[in-house]
Amino acid sequence: MIEDSKSRNPVLKIQQLLHTTFISAQEMADVVQFKGTQTIIKELADYIKQDFLRWDHFDKSPRYASHSREGVIELMPTSDGEQFSFKYVNGHPKNTKQGLQTVTAFGVLSDVDSGYPILLSEMTLLTALRTAATSALMATFLAPKNPQCMAMIGCGAQSEFQILAFHTLLGVQQIRLFDVDIQAAMKCQSNLANHGLDIVICQNASAAVAGAHIITTCTADKKNATILSADMVSAGVHINAIGGDCSGKTELAADLLRRAEVFVEYEPQTRIEGDIQQLPDSFEVTEMHEVIKGRKSGRQEPQQITIFDGVGFAIEDFSALRYMYNMVHTLGRAKSIDLFSRPADPRDLFALIAEKSKSTSSEMDCLANAEDL
Amino acid sequence: MIEDSKSRNPVLKIQQLLHTTFISAQEMADVVQFKGTQTIIKELADYIKQDFLRWDHFDKSPRYASHSREGVIELMPTSDGEQFSFKYVNGHPKNTKQGLQTVTAFGVLSDVDSGYPILLSEMTLLTALRTAATSALMATFLAPKNPQCMAMIGCGAQSEFQILAFHTLLGVQQIRLFDVDIQAAMKCQSNLANHGLDIVICQNASAAVAGAHIITTCTADKKNATILSADMVSAGVHINAIGGDCSGKTELAADLLRRAEVFVEYEPQTRIEGDIQQLPDSFEVTEMHEVIKGRKSGRQEPQQITIFDGVGFAIEDFSALRYMYNMVHTLGRAKSIDLFSRPADPRDLFALIAEKSKSTSSEMDCLANAEDL
Repeated sequence: MIEDSKSRNPVLKIQQLLHTTFISAQEMADVVQFKGTQTIIKELADYIKQDFLRWDHFDKSPRYASHSREGVIELMPTSDGEQFSFKYVNGHPKNTKQGLQTVTAFGVLSDVDSGYPILLSEMTLLTALRTAATSALMATFLAPKNPQCMAMIGCGAQSEFQILAFHTLLGVQQIRLFDVDIQAAMKCQSNLANHGLDIVICQNASAAVAGAHIITTCTADKKNATILSADMVSAGVHINAIGGDCSGKTELAADLLRRAEVFVEYEPQTRIEGDIQQLPDSFEVTEMHEVIKGRKSGRQEPQQITIFDGVGFAIEDFSALRYMYNMVHTLGRAKSIDLFSRPADPRDLFALIAEKSKSTSSEMDCLANAEDL
Repeated sequence: MIEDSKSRNPVLKIQQLLHTTFISAQEMADVVQFKGTQTIIKELADYIKQDFLRWDHFDKSPRYASHSREGVIELMPTSDGEQFSFKYVNGHPKNTKQGLQTVTAFGVLSDVDSGYPILLSEMTLLTALRTAATSALMATFLAPKNPQCMAMIGCGAQSEFQILAFHTLLGVQQIRLFDVDIQAAMKCQSNLANHGLDIVICQNASAAVAGAHIITTCTADKKNATILSADMVSAGVHINAIGGDCSGKTELAADLLRRAEVFVEYEPQTRIEGDIQQLPDSFEVTEMHEVIKGRKSGRQEPQQITIFDGVGFAIEDFSALRYMYNMVHTLGRAKSIDLFSRPADPRDLFALIAEKSKSTSSEMDCLANAEDL
């Protein structure tokens, strides 16, 4: 493993620090194709699980959010004391009208001991993969036994990843799609043809959820919407609610939340951003790391309605960046980026520009003299 | 100008959004050599001044800091409502022992309306340039008239940039260097040979400050040090104190601060990070944007001691990124980086990996079957 060799060999470590690994958008797509989407999701879920098991090792804070009229730009930092990571991510629902994506992201993984970034990576695709891996991982603790059918409400950029994750980790085979734009549902169905799934497009959300064991809501409007009302959901269902993920953006009726057992990633952040922002702080929720560590129960009864009120947390990005760094190095396909000046003598930054600077200074002197004339 | 053409031409704007401009470490060094260090510092100071004049337009918050035993990793975001920027920067004084830099940095400038980053830039070199430009800009309001001589205490990576900035903006000609490591002072003297400066190396800080009109302190130890005591400084001197820039890291004696008029960038951040962290919150300071806007006085009397307690603020990085973006586009030397997935249909992120994913899925099925045997 890369990390082991680093700690054993200080010279190698410094060489690695001097060359920031870069995973471009094209390289991310290539490596996902090379490894296979389902393999990546499975391995990502393992990394996320490992990091949730050592939850207490991490610095945690609600993300920094810069809100504007049309959207939000966020910075999501965390650290386990050995490595530091952050993700830059935006959310602009109106972007699709201009041919731009609602969400774009990139991330950085750094060595805490030196402060040097060791990885810069695209995270638009990686966020879709880690979000899907997180949802499915949580569902392994919350969904009813042997779930066969999932309703997918909202067929945007995330939908195929969610479906493949639930297929891979939980064995879901039947998918019932609904989107207010039928073109989006058709795109999703077409993208997942030949994956051994039984996918039907439904006329409305009620039709989609009928008979489903799991309901995933992943819609994009930045408003308080009611994608699911309390009477639409049968006993025993698990709801994977991931579209309500910022202040003023919710998907589930408050009554539905009150009928269910609600699970979250990091309570202080979800109180601000999740569907539970509609409810008072006294409404009880369970943090998933407690469930994963076995300290608290996930699903307790077959008739229970469980809700994962997912908003996306910095530790999941940390896991994803750590996974990608190890993976591209293990595969021997790591490329580097010239992001930092590397003067031979670290105190001599000026040497990088010194030679030319001298002659330019002479030119400036000439100019100054010319103006004096 | 780029910004004007963007706002007038929505198609051009979207093309620009889809291609993030990248300024690598090499390109930064090349463009600084091409334009000339002094020209860059002068133009940067103008951009910083413009942004300090519209101080109230900016979202301001103390930076996010992740402290560890050996250093700190910081994220410094700000926005004027049109553009958003942040800088990643570390500070690890022990790094130089391993041949690594104390400070490395990179930054991002984004379009607020879409959330898309338009620039990713190296900022190790750029931070040195903007710090020097900021120091000299502030000194034009605080230093005594016609300063001829500057003492430079601490001759690390920042020193040459500071000296050139004070030479360029204030006309300083005589430089008196001191560093606990004489090699550092010799490096600085050698780098600035042929710049028309009169540079001498002094045996100690007291010798360096004798007769100086301006004293710049820029030392690196992460501790509460006393680089300057109250009795070392003569009446009428301006102190540019930039090395005391994080919690637990100061350079000036508390008595010296009390003898002087102290000026800061953003008071809430400087209370935490600046030399004034040694004093109670009731100690009065003046924010420099008030001085630049003409609402408050800078230097009022020849005998006054003025101190710029500089820690580096996000708006200066915003100015620097805005300047670099405009400059490389104006020069026609902007290169782009493949940082974001750009699916033809923004809701169809999966298309980027769909083809291969299908076949890989088949491979997975085969594997699963093989394991069943």
